[in-house]
Order: sequence, then structure tokens, then C-alpha cells
Amino acid sequence: MPYTAPIKDQQFVLQAIAGLEEVLALPGNEDTSVELVDAILEEANKFASAILAPLNKLGDKGHQLADGVVTTVEGFKEAYHQFRDAGWVGMRAPVEFGGQGLPALVTMATEEMWCASNLAFSLCPLLTLGAVEALDHHASDELKAIYLPKMSSGEWPGTMNLTEPQAGSDLAQVRSKAIPQADGSYLISGQKIFITWGEHDMADNIVHLVLARLPDAPAGVKGISLFVVPKFLVNADGSLGKRNDAYCVSIEHKLGIHGSPTCVMSYGDNGGAVGYLVGEANKGLAYMFTMMNHARLGVGVEGMAISERAYQKAVAYAKDRIQSRELGSDNSAPAAIIRHPDVRRMLMTMRAYIEGMRALTYFGGAALDKAAKHPDAAERQKNQYLINFLIPIIKGWNTEVANVVTSLGVQVHGGMGFIEETGAAQHMRDARITAIYEGTTGIHGMDLIGRKLASEKGLTCFTLLQEIDATLVALGQENDPTLAAIQRGVKQAALAAKESADFLLARFDQQPKQAAAGSVPFLMLMGVTLAGWLLAKSALIAKQQLAAGGADEAFCQNKLITARFFAEHIASQALAYGYEITQGAESTLALPDDQF
Amino acid sequence: MPYTAPIKDQQFVLQAIAGLEEVLALPGNEDTSVELVDAILEEANKFASAILAPLNKLGDKGHQLADGVVTTVEGFKEAYHQFRDAGWVGMRAPVEFGGQGLPALVTMATEEMWCASNLAFSLCPLLTLGAVEALDHHASDELKAIYLPKMSSGEWPGTMNLTEPQAGSDLAQVRSKAIPQADGSYLISGQKIFITWGEHDMADNIVHLVLARLPDAPAGVKGISLFVVPKFLVNADGSLGKRNDAYCVSIEHKLGIHGSPTCVMSYGDNGGAVGYLVGEANKGLAYMFTMMNHARLGVGVEGMAISERAYQKAVAYAKDRIQSRELGSDNSAPAAIIRHPDVRRMLMTMRAYIEGMRALTYFGGAALDKAAKHPDAAERQKNQYLINFLIPIIKGWNTEVANVVTSLGVQVHGGMGFIEETGAAQHMRDARITAIYEGTTGIHGMDLIGRKLASEKGLTCFTLLQEIDATLVALGQENDPTLAAIQRGVKQAALAAKESADFLLARFDQQPKQAAAGSVPFLMLMGVTLAGWLLAKSALIAKQQLAAGGADEAFCQNKLITARFFAEHIASQALAYGYEITQGAESTLALPDDQF
Repeated sequence: MPYTAPIKDQQFVLQAIAGLEEVLALPGNEDTSVELVDAILEEANKFASAILAPLNKLGDKGHQLADGVVTTVEGFKEAYHQFRDAGWVGMRAPVEFGGQGLPALVTMATEEMWCASNLAFSLCPLLTLGAVEALDHHASDELKAIYLPKMSSGEWPGTMNLTEPQAGSDLAQVRSKAIPQADGSYLISGQKIFITWGEHDMADNIVHLVLARLPDAPAGVKGISLFVVPKFLVNADGSLGKRNDAYCVSIEHKLGIHGSPTCVMSYGDNGGAVGYLVGEANKGLAYMFTMMNHARLGVGVEGMAISERAYQKAVAYAKDRIQSRELGSDNSAPAAIIRHPDVRRMLMTMRAYIEGMRALTYFGGAALDKAAKHPDAAERQKNQYLINFLIPIIKGWNTEVANVVTSLGVQVHGGMGFIEETGAAQHMRDARITAIYEGTTGIHGMDLIGRKLASEKGLTCFTLLQEIDATLVALGQENDPTLAAIQRGVKQAALAAKESADFLLARFDQQPKQAAAGSVPFLMLMGVTLAGWLLAKSALIAKQQLAAGGADEAFCQNKLITARFFAEHIASQALAYGYEITQGAESTLALPDDQF
Repeated sequence: MPYTAPIKDQQFVLQAIAGLEEVLALPGNEDTSVELVDAILEEANKFASAILAPLNKLGDKGHQLADGVVTTVEGFKEAYHQFRDAGWVGMRAPVEFGGQGLPALVTMATEEMWCASNLAFSLCPLLTLGAVEALDHHASDELKAIYLPKMSSGEWPGTMNLTEPQAGSDLAQVRSKAIPQADGSYLISGQKIFITWGEHDMADNIVHLVLARLPDAPAGVKGISLFVVPKFLVNADGSLGKRNDAYCVSIEHKLGIHGSPTCVMSYGDNGGAVGYLVGEANKGLAYMFTMMNHARLGVGVEGMAISERAYQKAVAYAKDRIQSRELGSDNSAPAAIIRHPDVRRMLMTMRAYIEGMRALTYFGGAALDKAAKHPDAAERQKNQYLINFLIPIIKGWNTEVANVVTSLGVQVHGGMGFIEETGAAQHMRDARITAIYEGTTGIHGMDLIGRKLASEKGLTCFTLLQEIDATLVALGQENDPTLAAIQRGVKQAALAAKESADFLLARFDQQPKQAAAGSVPFLMLMGVTLAGWLLAKSALIAKQQLAAGGADEAFCQNKLITARFFAEHIASQALAYGYEITQGAESTLALPDDQF
């Protein structure tokens, strides 16, 4: 199952949609040129295609746990060491601690490659970076000095320990305890579940970030603190000390991502795990949220990336598999199935979704960089609102779409798709978790209509819809049938989005359940609308490049066709979403519990 | 993972939508009363819930192949013997050969229970009945006398051997050979793949139906003949003779339905497998088609049934799992997640889809019975057209929906859904094959717009749309807000269906690829339109029952709410399907192969 990063597509979106040059001109990014970005993409593609992609299927066998030790599938440890030694872990880690401080937008493109080539593997560095970000923002200088250089280099990967059996989406229920010790440390005890890469043999140490409660902590989310709990304690000279009381007691038998051990971690079974408070007591949840934006965007990248992988596989099969004659052809010999319209419809659906996801996701990546680094405070603020609004959409929509796309990947393979050796099914199994972890789609739907849409009275949403209107005007000025078709499809999506936003805003305060009933459909509606809009912009740019001459004509035509397909086949879903949001709240809520 | 058949729902649909009493009044059905049907459902539910459902998860471990022998997971053999001995196999087999000759509509309801409780298990009797049907229609009296009694009783299960590596959807490519022998038998050789229950230890003999070519056969589908190839030859006295040269050489490692061995069957590796020609030479494919209607309806039942199973599991979890407080409630304590609007939206989506599938499928079952047994030839003909039209929709739409519903079942479980021990993921894995085998959705889309819609110039389709119009009028006469909401949703679906059918009919002959590009969207569009219509009818009946008094009020309200939910949240998809069919053909077909 080979994989080659779609570098040309990535570069097009980076430049045409995400404004790479503008991002590289931000303060702190001066050392990164477009040429350097191109070189990074080339090198990352080599690593992803040559080292990570071939390991993906091997990882599906799953790693083994024995006596608290997880032994990874052969090849994973070596690959991780190569990945670490090549400097890929710390690309967006702070320069101060040995990272390269690259823009989020740039690392998003390489993360796409890691996720596409080996989703399970990619979670280890992804989580490490999340931990680095949380510590960098909130930990004491002393903790940073001890942990961040080793974590940024990937020598000590990090993990996130939030979930407990009774505390999933509802972290108010966290029960793990932290008892202060005389030396300023804490003894942590409790059980955490669903800890990705919680234990393994790829590194000498693992740095767990753990949510727990102090003895006098208030109930609920305001009584949760964040602790660093290393697998091995660190001596004053930086060398590794004794094994901490933090053990993996089992690994889950999962539907997918078997190549990443999902651990039940037990803290303090033998007297207490030594932990160190990050920042202030009782602010743990807020601290986690500072890194969640990046982590959630990262999961959005996962959804896009695994879809790309499934697409490449499906295309290869559709070009190779010969079955049945071509409709309307004089040639009666069986044809490659890519010649059959419904196979083509499936492949076009996959690629249009992927291009839409990439446009939306990179657009979000640029907003993240501008929110952090733009010299103008108003621009920073505007981009912060923008990325806040986009994140639930990118996370939720991309991952729901990934389930659709990877399932289409199976379907293109026909009966062979159901056979595990073929590999298409693994992508579908792997993709399934992305709509669940880092907040289910339902959680993101509520985040979108509440903390994002309603809390700012729709400001960012309506600003985006105004920008869409401007693009619609531009599309109409070109007198081009393809652009007109795109305009028509995107316009009806934007109208549905506007009506739906109005509906939700009018009900959020007084009829919160009526609004909540439409939350996920609204998230999906915004996904197809925004992605359709960004592909419309890319179609305009492709058209301009064609008119200017000298462009890769086939590539530009491809962008026009794909944007049109999206507008007609995917953005058109907005009609259904809009209808269910504005008409369907009552029927969602009406049935008594006992009638289910 | 318990399962209880939704008997009350089934009875409602049997009577209100499928016209059970009319079907029981058909010639040949006189011995079956409504009371007998009720008793059958009760008994079948006992068997399904007590014997088959608990085995479902055990079957997921997969059966073992060694030296050509498949040893089934412990419990399967005993369950099969109980199932067989209780007479469940031959319920719709011909009375002449020991079957019970029950109407398809009635056995559809019990098949729903077998498929829901244990999909993998259910495939063995389902395929057996397909083989019985093919032999009953086409085999010589001699072959029938030897095989049909044993097959109808389930003593000798049957299999279907169509696919070869190069011949999947395109059976014209079948290469297996049959060489005539002096005694009138044939020596069969070749390899068949994807043979469900091709080998196992649950029976003394297995009767394979095999497609192969005679030496002088024409190329393509007109040169394929059908053969009976028993695992053990049958002596003149009916006892079992020597082992035939028909062996399972491997079993597939599949995404799901692990509880059914999917075999690579090799015929004639050791001199030739003895086979017997069914009917005339070169008519094998036509013979297979006579049983395919039933088999395809059966897969439609599978899609509905596995969705019901996933729904029951999701509801149980949603009532049990406590997480986060209820929106707009004064109670700040965490609530069962069924109280959260988006969880409720997911559960309502699942149940509305299931009720829609059941209505549509049983409606088809009644048509099948009337096509076979109605005393009026014109009624038989009309119902034959109807069921011909419905089959690709029931098979294609139900199974695509099953993928959506079982995936929602995972989503309702959150992180636990991804853990295999939970069991939700198995239903999703099991469901995935239903949209692939017995013809992929793409194959059924083409069948629908070609052999069904275009070949009769839309007659059945437009007749159905007229019936929908009559229902819409009735809905409008009631002056009831729920019925008005249903009317609105179904009406726009029917309009989209009409426009789309016109579009496809106008292009099928001259622009076949433009029509084919819309084939699967049209199949899906007809699914939501017809199911929405039948649920609208059930809402009208529920309303009448409420008005008449004495009805189960909660049950009737439930029907009204669910039909409304379907109209607003699912039938509304018709807007998107209609748009992509009528606007999107060009963009589906435009991209050159090398740009994928």
C-alpha cells in the first residue's frame, strides 16, 4: 500500500487558500521561506512514503502488553528513532527548548503526511506536541527546563491523561487524586483510560500529563489540577532515576489504530506516583484547553489525511481492476472500473471531500498562526475568533467525512474491500475513532453553537458569510459556466447556513434543546458551506492562472472540475441540513424516553 | 448483548403497510392465519433472543480451517441443529419437498430476527433457501427428489458459487469448466471465491451450486451453465457416498461477519468434481437470476435487521450512561445521555431509518407474494413490476443505511464504541458487507435506472409517485400539524424523485453515462421517498387508530413522531439527491483518468 504525499495539491492550497506568504511574513517566521517549505515537504514525503507507510499495515497486528511493558510491532521503534533523530518531532515546538518553531500552517502539511502514511504512529508525536504546548504555556521555568528539551526532541514522548471510566466528555467527574508532599511534589493516584501511547518501548522515558484533584479542591471542573507524572523520575543532573508508580495495566482491543497502544494507566497502586503541579492548582482544565485547539485541529488533519490515503488506494484499484464493458463505448472488452460512472462518482466524491477538507483545514492553520503572531492586535483578535469558530467545524466535519470517504474506499474495492489483506478496511477502521476522540462530534456541535456562535451573537459566522457573498459576486462576474455552476451550489449552501444560524441564535438562550437538536447538522452545514466556498475561491484562482497563461492547464482544470463537483454533489447537502435544523427540532425531542 | 425482536413494530407494519391479511388470503396461503403468524413471531423471537443472539459475539472470533475442514466456533453446530430440527430452515421452502411454503412476507419477519440476532449464522439458511429456490424452479425431477427434501429441512445446506477472481460483478468472465461424462454427469474444475459457508462442520453434506462453462459454450454470459456439486456424492439409496473433489482451500480474513466462513473453493484439483447440470446448458445465469430477487430482498432484510440490533444496543447504553447535566434543567446532576439532544437525534435517526426500512421491505415482501400467487393475472403482473422496481432500492438503500445506522450506534457509545468488547463495532463491521455482496450498490443503481426505470419508461415509478400524491392529499385533509409537517417533507421528496426520474429517462438511451452518474443517488432518493411515504401512511393509520379510541396511545404517538422525524431529517435528503442528479452529471464525468 504505497503512499505519496499530494505535494502539488498541498502547495496550491498553502498558497492560494491559506496565504502561505503572508504567514511566513509574520514576526518570528522570517527564517522560513517558501523554498524552505517546499524542501521540507519533499523531505517529509520521503520519510512518510518510505518509512512510515510500509509500517502501517504491520502496526495493524497490534502491540503486545506483558508485565506492564508494551512491546511495539517490529519496525516501530526504529522508525520512531529515525523520525526523532531527523528532527521531525519538534518542528513546531518552541525554539527556546530546541524546537524549530515553524508555523502551524507548515507543520500541518507535514502532519498530514504522518497521519496519512501511518495514523497510529503519528499519534505519538502529536500527543507529545500537545503536552509540550501545555507545559510551555503553563509550567514553571524549572519544569520546563527539565522536560521541554527532551520532549521537543522526541526523546521523551508525552501523553494526555484526562478520561476516567465515569469521566469521558464530562471531565467534572474526574476522581483521580493528588496529595501534596513536603518536598512540593504530589502523590498521584487513580485510573485513567484511553491513554494513547501511554506505555511503549520506543523511548527511555514517557511524560504523562495527568488531571487530578487536590484534597481540598472544589467539586466539578473548577477543582481539577494538571500534573506532570514521568514514567521515570528525573534526577537533578537530568539523568533518569527510579521508576515511577505509573503503570499500564491493560491495552484495549480496538476497532482500529491498532498500531497505537491505548492504555489503561494506573497511578499509585504501589504507594503513589510522584507528580508535579503544572501552574496553579484547580486550573488544570483551563490549561488543557489551551492545547486543545491545536490537538483538535490535529484530529481534523487526521480525518483529511486518512481520507487521502484511502483515496489513493481506491484510485489505484479502480485503474487496475478490469470488469464489465464501458457504457456507450464501441469497445465490448471489459474496462478498468474507473471508466464506470458510479465508480467515478465515488472517486470524485472522495477527492472533492479531501480537497474541501484540505482547503478548510489549512485556512484554519493560517488563522491559528495569525492569531498568535500578527503584529496588529485587532488582526490577532479577529483571527482568534476565526480559528475558535473553525475548530469544531474542522474537527467535527473532517472526521465525519473521513468515515464516509474511507467507507467509499472500501466500496470501490467491491468484495475485495471487505478482505482485510486488501487494506482498504483498515483505513475505515482507523478513521472511525477520529469522530470520537478529542471530543465527539456532538460535543463539537454544542461547542460550535454555544461557545462560538451564540457567545459572539454570530459575529464570526456572519463575517464569513459576507466573505462568501463577495466570492459569489466574483464568480458571477466571470461569465463561465463552470464558475456559474459553482456559484449556484455554494449560494444555496450559504443561504441555508444563514437561515440556520439565525434559527439557532434565536433559540439558544430560551430554548436550548431546540438549538442543540440542530447543533451537529449545523456543524456539518458549515463544513460543506465553508469548504465549498474555499474550493470556489480555488476555482477562481485556477481560472485566473489559466487566463494568465503558463499554468499547468490540466491541474487548473482539475481544480475547476473538483470545485464544481463539490458544489453540486456535496455543498448541496446544505439543503437537507438547513431543512432539518429549521424544521426538525421538535421531532428530535418529542419521543418519551420509554418509547425508545 | 441481548436482542429482543420488535414484534409489536413488526406486526404493525405487517398489517398496516404490507396488508398481511390480504397476503394470507392469497391462494395457497389459506392455512396461515394472523394468529398463526403471531405465534410464529413469538417462537422465532424466543429462538433468536435465547440461542442465536448470545452466539453472535462468539462467532466474531472466527472459525478455523485446517486440512480443508472448517471447525466452527463452539455453539454454532448445536445452534444450527436446534434451528434445523425446529423446522426454521424450510419455512418458505416448497411444501412438496417438506418445506412449509409460508408467504415471503411472513418469513421476512422471522428472517429479520435471524439476521438481527446473528447475521453470520443467518447466512447459512438464507443461502440454502436460495439454492432450494433455484433447484425447485429449474432442476430435473430427479435432482429435485434427491436434493430438495434434505436441503429444505436444512440437513444439507446449500451454497452459491458464482464469483471467481476475475469475475465479480462481471460474470461474463467466469472460467470454471464442466466436462460432460459418459454417465450424464460433468467433471467440474476451477476456483471460486467469496463462498459463504462453503465448508463447515454443521452438516453431513453441503450442496454447492456452481456456475461453469461447457467446452463448446459461447463466450460471455450466454455460455454459463449451472451445476449441482455436492460435497459428498449421494448413493442411489440416498445415503452419502464418496467425498467429492470440492474443497475449501482457504478462508478469508474479513472486516466482519467472522461467524460465517468465507471460503475459497477449489473444484477438481484431484481429477474433477462430479457435478450435475441444472436445467439446460448455457442458461445458468438466467437461473441464478430467478433466485436473486429473493436473495437480494434477503440482503435488504439483513441491512434493516443489523440496524435494529445496533439501535437496541445504543438505546440501552444511552439510558445507562450518565454524563453531563441536562440542558435547560434545574437539576445540576449528570443525566443519562439519552437526555442530551444530539444523542437523541442520533437515536431518532437510527429508529426512523429502521422503521422506514421495515415499512419498505415488508411492502416489497407483500408484492413478492402477490406477484407469485394473486389470482388475477393483471395483479400478478403489476406486483411483479413493483417488486422488480423495489428490489434494487430495498437492497441498495437498506444496506447503505445500515452502514450509517451501525456507525451511529458506535458514535452513541463514545469512546467505548471503539472498544471491541463493547460490541457496537462488530455490528458496524458486520453491516459493511451488505452493501457489497449480492451486487454492490452501484450495480443495483444501474439495474434500477436501466432494467427497471427505463425499460418500462418509468411506469412503476410514476404509478408509485401517484400513490404518494394520494397519500399527500389525505395528509392535508387531517388539519393536524404533525401530519402537515410529514406532508411537507414527503412532498418535496416526491417532487425531487419525479424531476430526477424525468432527467434520467430523458438521457438513458442517448447519454447513458449522464444517467449512470445519477444512478446511485436516484436509488437513494427513491429509498428516502418511498420509505417516507410508507411512514406517512403509517402515521395516518396511527392517527385513525387514536381517533377511533382504544388504541395504544403511546405507540400511536410514537409512529406519528417517528414519521415526522423521518420526513424532516431523512426524506429531506431528497433535496440534495435531486440536485446532484439533475445538476451534477457533467462534473462527475469530466475529470480525465490521469488526473485522479
